[in-house]
Amino acid sequence: MPTNQQIHLDNRPVGEAVASNFKLVSSETPALQDGQVLVRHHYLSLDPYMRGRMNDAKSYAQPQALGQTMGGGTVGEVVESKNPKFEVGNTVVGMGGWQEYSVVDANQPGALRKVDTTHIPLSHYLGAVGMPGVTAWYGLVKIIAPQVGQTMVISAATGAVGSAFAALSKARGCRTVGIAGGPDKCKYAVDELGFDACIDYKLHKDAASLSKALKEACPNGVDGYFENVGGMVLDAVLTRMNAFGRIAVCGMIAGYDGLPLPLAYPALILTQRLKVEGFIVSEHMEIWPEALKELGGLVATGKLKPRESIAQGIAAAPEAFLGLLKGKNFGKQLVKLI
Amino acid sequence: MPTNQQIHLDNRPVGEAVASNFKLVSSETPALQDGQVLVRHHYLSLDPYMRGRMNDAKSYAQPQALGQTMGGGTVGEVVESKNPKFEVGNTVVGMGGWQEYSVVDANQPGALRKVDTTHIPLSHYLGAVGMPGVTAWYGLVKIIAPQVGQTMVISAATGAVGSAFAALSKARGCRTVGIAGGPDKCKYAVDELGFDACIDYKLHKDAASLSKALKEACPNGVDGYFENVGGMVLDAVLTRMNAFGRIAVCGMIAGYDGLPLPLAYPALILTQRLKVEGFIVSEHMEIWPEALKELGGLVATGKLKPRESIAQGIAAAPEAFLGLLKGKNFGKQLVKLI
Repeated sequence: MPTNQQIHLDNRPVGEAVASNFKLVSSETPALQDGQVLVRHHYLSLDPYMRGRMNDAKSYAQPQALGQTMGGGTVGEVVESKNPKFEVGNTVVGMGGWQEYSVVDANQPGALRKVDTTHIPLSHYLGAVGMPGVTAWYGLVKIIAPQVGQTMVISAATGAVGSAFAALSKARGCRTVGIAGGPDKCKYAVDELGFDACIDYKLHKDAASLSKALKEACPNGVDGYFENVGGMVLDAVLTRMNAFGRIAVCGMIAGYDGLPLPLAYPALILTQRLKVEGFIVSEHMEIWPEALKELGGLVATGKLKPRESIAQGIAAAPEAFLGLLKGKNFGKQLVKLI
Repeated sequence: MPTNQQIHLDNRPVGEAVASNFKLVSSETPALQDGQVLVRHHYLSLDPYMRGRMNDAKSYAQPQALGQTMGGGTVGEVVESKNPKFEVGNTVVGMGGWQEYSVVDANQPGALRKVDTTHIPLSHYLGAVGMPGVTAWYGLVKIIAPQVGQTMVISAATGAVGSAFAALSKARGCRTVGIAGGPDKCKYAVDELGFDACIDYKLHKDAASLSKALKEACPNGVDGYFENVGGMVLDAVLTRMNAFGRIAVCGMIAGYDGLPLPLAYPALILTQRLKVEGFIVSEHMEIWPEALKELGGLVATGKLKPRESIAQGIAAAPEAFLGLLKGKNFGKQLVKLI
């Protein structure tokens, strides 16, 4: 049995999450039972939603248990199998968590899925052709429901969700505007991801200033907004929403550290007759096949070229995750485990 | 030609609206052109949306023009007609404004509608079987879409919208909880309007205290909320929303006087996967016939017994309106003009 290094949640953050909330632990992988599969992880996905689970608060997901391996999406290969549906060498995607190996009861529906790496690199199944890509798809297609010629805006534009959103939105004939932090990310958004414009929120000290920049980038107003951050950015975009605009609320990363961030002008929801809808993509499994098909096609044909930030080795996961929460990543944040 | 007393908007409010924003003016009604009808108003409707129109601000409706008669819904009778579709004595509902008579181009679609007063008193066409009733219907049926056994909450519970909402919600098998100001209104909500419980928000100094009262009144949480007021009440109800709850935003009366009221915990929209949607009932004319049919049936069968606050004479309209904004009315606020 190989030795398995894991990252546990050791204690909960008080305010900002810090490295000492996590603990590196070594264990032996247990012997397999019938139906189980041993997966060696190639990549671990780091995602903003994990910060929410570190709190012991009412939320959509159970809080991450203390003293247990942090949960998270993984891709890897089967190295041992007692399940007839999987054989050694299969490339698979699952929820293996922050560790080098996982033992998976592969008969549980959705626990482990074989993926084809002929045209799509394995790591992309954690990003553009995985949960983040489907997240962008659901928010855009099912909540925002864009029409040709409308203007779409997304915050955290160069992340895994933002990259996929740009390709999906452009494919629907929409003006597509990103909001990101810093000139490098904004240049990349326009040059590589296909955004029509990208606004550097770090150049703006308040919502009024950011709102002015949005007016220039969105001369016809904003019809759809995909919300990843909350706070000042949400306040600014709200002031630019057109009548009957739709806001898909996917994340409020700005408020994860404790102090709730109020929304300055909720009356705009009424005066502009907006629809604001929160969602969790894992609650809409019925749309995954359709979304993954479109996303896979966009990657295979080069219309979606997602960038990845890759940290090396399981011990690097906590720092990489804390960096992600501060926007230090550039594209999809992964940890390489081989 | 009869003399026609009118209330004009003389100047815009700075902060709170005051009586001196209005001006009483006398004029002669002009001679009728072909296709026109002269209507003598029996009742004028006073509604919270009118406060929004007094500001010169971006909103769903054009601002009320200065030096012009205040707009508003009216019921009355035809006293002169140069239109073959209307004859003297017809009872009609229209948008005659804050005045005793109006000249209506009755060929304009929707400008004037004949109504039957056999089973429904004329004034109710401005309330339960008019715009406020249809407003309750649209928010409940089209946005909240209640299911049997769910819990519905409405603020401003004893107003024209709230009364209709209670009857419509109970008819759909929902636990129905009101929020109103003062013990008399709360007792009336339960005894006369059919609410299962009613919370007196005046007993609560902050959202946390109101939230605790809501927990008692809504032991299974809140699935649908019809928002008329905003501010502290909205903050409190948000903390009690169940997963996949729906909020229909119809009014934010608490914020009309200038200072915008922030929303304290927008992240709940995400964590509870809420849908929050603003609407203006006049933009959904296609549902009016279905809604009016149900509302008329509820009134005719005594299941909806709306209460009215009636001020006498056009000169009394400004004070009655300012009282409405402060919640001094009890039931639908009208001005009797005959």
